Amino acid sequence: MAEQVTIAVDAMGGDAGPSVVLDGTAQALAADPNLTVILCGPAEEVEPFAASHERCIARATTQVIEMGEHPANAVRQKKDSSIVVGCRLVKEESAQGFFSAGSTGACLAAATLVMGRVKGVKRPALSQVLPSYDRPTLLMDVGANADCKPEYLVQFAQMGTVYMEKIMGVENPRVGLLNIGEEETKGDIFAQETFELLRAQIPQFAGNCEGGNLIAGDFDVVVTDGFTGNVTLKTIEGTAKVLFKYLKDAFYSSAKTKVGAVLVKSELAELKKKVSPDTYGGGALLGVKGACVVGHGSSNATAIKNGILFTATTARSHVPEIIAEKVAAVSAAASVAAGE
Amino acid sequence: MAEQVTIAVDAMGGDAGPSVVLDGTAQALAADPNLTVILCGPAEEVEPFAASHERCIARATTQVIEMGEHPANAVRQKKDSSIVVGCRLVKEESAQGFFSAGSTGACLAAATLVMGRVKGVKRPALSQVLPSYDRPTLLMDVGANADCKPEYLVQFAQMGTVYMEKIMGVENPRVGLLNIGEEETKGDIFAQETFELLRAQIPQFAGNCEGGNLIAGDFDVVVTDGFTGNVTLKTIEGTAKVLFKYLKDAFYSSAKTKVGAVLVKSELAELKKKVSPDTYGGGALLGVKGACVVGHGSSNATAIKNGILFTATTARSHVPEIIAEKVAAVSAAASVAAGE
Repeated sequence: MAEQVTIAVDAMGGDAGPSVVLDGTAQALAADPNLTVILCGPAEEVEPFAASHERCIARATTQVIEMGEHPANAVRQKKDSSIVVGCRLVKEESAQGFFSAGSTGACLAAATLVMGRVKGVKRPALSQVLPSYDRPTLLMDVGANADCKPEYLVQFAQMGTVYMEKIMGVENPRVGLLNIGEEETKGDIFAQETFELLRAQIPQFAGNCEGGNLIAGDFDVVVTDGFTGNVTLKTIEGTAKVLFKYLKDAFYSSAKTKVGAVLVKSELAELKKKVSPDTYGGGALLGVKGACVVGHGSSNATAIKNGILFTATTARSHVPEIIAEKVAAVSAAASVAAGE
Repeated sequence: MAEQVTIAVDAMGGDAGPSVVLDGTAQALAADPNLTVILCGPAEEVEPFAASHERCIARATTQVIEMGEHPANAVRQKKDSSIVVGCRLVKEESAQGFFSAGSTGACLAAATLVMGRVKGVKRPALSQVLPSYDRPTLLMDVGANADCKPEYLVQFAQMGTVYMEKIMGVENPRVGLLNIGEEETKGDIFAQETFELLRAQIPQFAGNCEGGNLIAGDFDVVVTDGFTGNVTLKTIEGTAKVLFKYLKDAFYSSAKTKVGAVLVKSELAELKKKVSPDTYGGGALLGVKGACVVGHGSSNATAIKNGILFTATTARSHVPEIIAEKVAAVSAAASVAAGE
């Protein structure tokens, strides 16, 4: 039986408004009998819903952080926004995790400033599971840190391997560095430096991963800086979207192809779901003191449901605590090696 | 009637060996009656072929640059390699362009060192036409310069717009900067600086282009540094490849789907061709004194044919000369503005 867990949910997160979030929350509660949700948002949205759903608590908030607001400023100024309040509930240990499909920047800032970084973690990183052929691949950082130092990627690798071991059950996850070409001397100056650090410090480091191999299933964890990671992630999503558009055109081009389309309809729908970002419902921010998952702004109710359930899984796997131990252990070993 | 043009071809370029190159060359010559090819490679490969094909001249070479050799060193040491000789033929004006599916690094080094940079161009850039929905999109730099300065991207934009106007016939090509998010303040430090320069100096600059919009057909030219461009390009190719793999699995999953597959077979083959890098046969290196096109190592004969024909088109469009005029004009204007 799964452990009881409480997740704070941002009722105002997402382009489609609170009704979609509430719908997704209802589905998550129904799917997980050991889940409790603290729903954060305006009283008129959250109180009726909480009153009519078991294992749901209302936490009324009076402010909202809009898309486009400067993240750190918004987090500092809007202390009673659903995003900041949700993270504070985790800080106060009223909840073990927080989920929002709202402003990614604001979620990252709130998690970092309010939940706080795991001791020793230089920079938390936003991760995303890619729909790789045969086995899932975790890509990080996909947008928390546009500019990185090589040492941050070493920690990304450490955090990512904890995630894949504890949440995905992968033994000895293979770690790759997103880079150009497979030869180790290739890449820009940043990639070359990072390669050397990873080789020295990450036992599971298995070399460079080219863009073309990202979803080929060659690696379990692939690390990169937040700029490259975000562009790459969006490129995968955009490419899949355009290909499905092209496919649709092909299928609707004649009577013959329309018949063909009907025959493969459910398999194609399965495939679309498989490569959709909705399946996991979001990406986990690793390196903060609590489970924090950020969903796509365009999330529908199913994606919201999946995002909340995924946050619960992350919290139950105690990933933040294990990351804390691992980072502390690595720091201690480094201190010993440095003769402190 | 198309202008007569002579293209030097590297017979040794490509993973599959000279026979594939010869096959592609034969097809290109057959398709273009105003094309002459100077075939560079070992005498025993090129002389029999040239003797039996009209408009083909043999240029026997005695050295080969292998994949994996350090590019600049190989170019300096192997002066009688097919790649160096091919570029030299352009320098000597015996040919107007050079095509190879061999080592990208060696081709870039040879073109830069032997053909020479167009006066005023700081860094030549490797470009690639993407199979965008509705309209082709030129992405550059896709690998010539892993580390860039913001000012290089301004020139990439200038060169890319010449290309799209003269080769693709696009009036007023829209230029985008590959970046995270659409707000202009987003991005890493490099992207933010580059955005400002592009805004000030490129009239056709239309803002940031997210990874997701790259093949959505929103821009005609998208500029980025060589590292990001290469990873992004390889990601698009790899994502398409995996999706087709998934599609194949879906189609072969049952008797019903197999029937469906037969009904859409030719449309799918068309689609696969549409998004394949083989269609253009390669990417043009812009900013060197001559047409230079680099093909995928995995090129089959059709891709080789397309690459050679594309090199001929690039040469006939006088893109290098127009780039030279444009860069000179921009420099002159900048000097006047600076009061020199």
